[in-house]
Amino acid sequence: MARYVFGADVGGTTAKIGLLTETGEMLDFWEIPTRTEDHGKMILADVSDSIRAKMKERNIEDTEVIGAGIGVPGAVNADGLCYQAVNLGWENYNVVNEFHSKLKLPVKAGNDANVAALGEAWKGGGKGYKNMLLVTLGTGVGGGIINEGKILTGSFGSGGEIGHIHLVDDEEDACGCGNNGCFEQYASATGAMRLAKRMLASSNEDSVLRNGEFECKDVFDAAKKGDALAVKIAEQYGYYLGKGIAITATVVNPEIIVLGGGVSKAGEMLFDLLMPSFKKYVFSGCSNAKFTLAKLGNDAGVYGAAKLLIP
Amino acid sequence: MARYVFGADVGGTTAKIGLLTETGEMLDFWEIPTRTEDHGKMILADVSDSIRAKMKERNIEDTEVIGAGIGVPGAVNADGLCYQAVNLGWENYNVVNEFHSKLKLPVKAGNDANVAALGEAWKGGGKGYKNMLLVTLGTGVGGGIINEGKILTGSFGSGGEIGHIHLVDDEEDACGCGNNGCFEQYASATGAMRLAKRMLASSNEDSVLRNGEFECKDVFDAAKKGDALAVKIAEQYGYYLGKGIAITATVVNPEIIVLGGGVSKAGEMLFDLLMPSFKKYVFSGCSNAKFTLAKLGNDAGVYGAAKLLIP
Repeated sequence: MARYVFGADVGGTTAKIGLLTETGEMLDFWEIPTRTEDHGKMILADVSDSIRAKMKERNIEDTEVIGAGIGVPGAVNADGLCYQAVNLGWENYNVVNEFHSKLKLPVKAGNDANVAALGEAWKGGGKGYKNMLLVTLGTGVGGGIINEGKILTGSFGSGGEIGHIHLVDDEEDACGCGNNGCFEQYASATGAMRLAKRMLASSNEDSVLRNGEFECKDVFDAAKKGDALAVKIAEQYGYYLGKGIAITATVVNPEIIVLGGGVSKAGEMLFDLLMPSFKKYVFSGCSNAKFTLAKLGNDAGVYGAAKLLIP
Repeated sequence: MARYVFGADVGGTTAKIGLLTETGEMLDFWEIPTRTEDHGKMILADVSDSIRAKMKERNIEDTEVIGAGIGVPGAVNADGLCYQAVNLGWENYNVVNEFHSKLKLPVKAGNDANVAALGEAWKGGGKGYKNMLLVTLGTGVGGGIINEGKILTGSFGSGGEIGHIHLVDDEEDACGCGNNGCFEQYASATGAMRLAKRMLASSNEDSVLRNGEFECKDVFDAAKKGDALAVKIAEQYGYYLGKGIAITATVVNPEIIVLGGGVSKAGEMLFDLLMPSFKKYVFSGCSNAKFTLAKLGNDAGVYGAAKLLIP
């Protein structure tokens, strides 16, 4: 008998949903809108209805389904309690209980960044490794720690919040979290842009980046083409990235470190950029971690959500 | 039928061994010398013989014993491979295989600091908590992370090596690990002494610490009695302690943080000293961790080694 599992990755605008086999083959993938009105109280019912509709469409019986996992944009503890998901309107909302009451199948839930890490460990860049660190370099820096094949959730669902480890003492700008000098203030796409603008302002050196507006991607593209100032910005970015990863790796000793998110599209040059400071700051016993790029892109969360149900 | 478990904590001079019930009652406790000659090849045979002698003495049958756990002063991976234990003479030595071939009972092994953390989580300061961080403030800073009741071992047995997270950029002295600016260079007893000597040298302020030789304990004692310079040293120590713990807690989100080791004898004043920087640097989602003192002292490793065998 075939055995199926569903994974859902709920964002503030849409929820991505996948139907997978228990070995992780994606059979179907679709999206539904996320209805955030009334404190998001329809969201889990909508996901549940959509899964039920898919089961009907494909003549899948309850007994053939292992269950459904869900990743949400907020901290979720081991009991499924989501403390807050601002983009969904949830506060102190037990995702597991609510989702199960709707779907009537086994369910599990986790934080979206952590669930994406689980997806990358299952079918992506960390496939075959039991101890993995995912570093997602997007608007912020997200993270997920996979320890012996499972998400390190932490007590209050904030395990792996590595974007907010303290990295720099004299930072005057505040991070979104309220602290100053967080890792993500330097290693996110936003951080890279901040570094770029600071360096452009503090020098008169010629650069293609002075030719009007630019984006984070342009900095790395210019560096690849040898633009001297862009190279310096990229090196500075790499310094912070390597340092933050070194500190995290010293705490949890991953076998492989996977870089994902928008900035990771800069590709393997990131490894060269981060390696000097990674090697300088990491504890020797943790220094032989491998580095690779994420492979699943925006689908990682759906894979990981499904994997929550699979031992 | 009674069910017994043995725990052994092997140091460079002696091995502490305990006979416990499966619920963690210590029935017997003794020590044997650690014979480090010939690359320490007799150590596990000695521990094994000692356990067998105790079983004979107490008429304990093999079927009544769950097994024996062992903590060793070196990194041990999930398969029981000890990469190096300098104080024992071991290198690339599979502790689990060797110990089992001698004892002929189920065995498990771990790094001594991690195993001590498991002991504190089972029967000490972290009792009742599934997610705990032990910070051992001794000659160095050791650590152990308990995640969902189990040791976070990491890929190469270096999980929880928090003494070597990078904390300070401009440190000129090298840490024992070869890096500069490691957490333990400030938060260990040695680190506290370094801070004290630096502050004494950089000021002319009167202090009881100027009356001849002093130890780490004297700094905290003097601070308790209101010696102004000692208070400043203690506050500086607390700053670094709180900062290092904040970074670690942001990565793994523990519910309780247990302080052990020699410096922790300074007691609850440490919490007041570290709290300002802990609160300043920790991610908000991890800020409500509790703090407490370790309770098992030097016996933590024996309890934890026994607990390795108990699910």
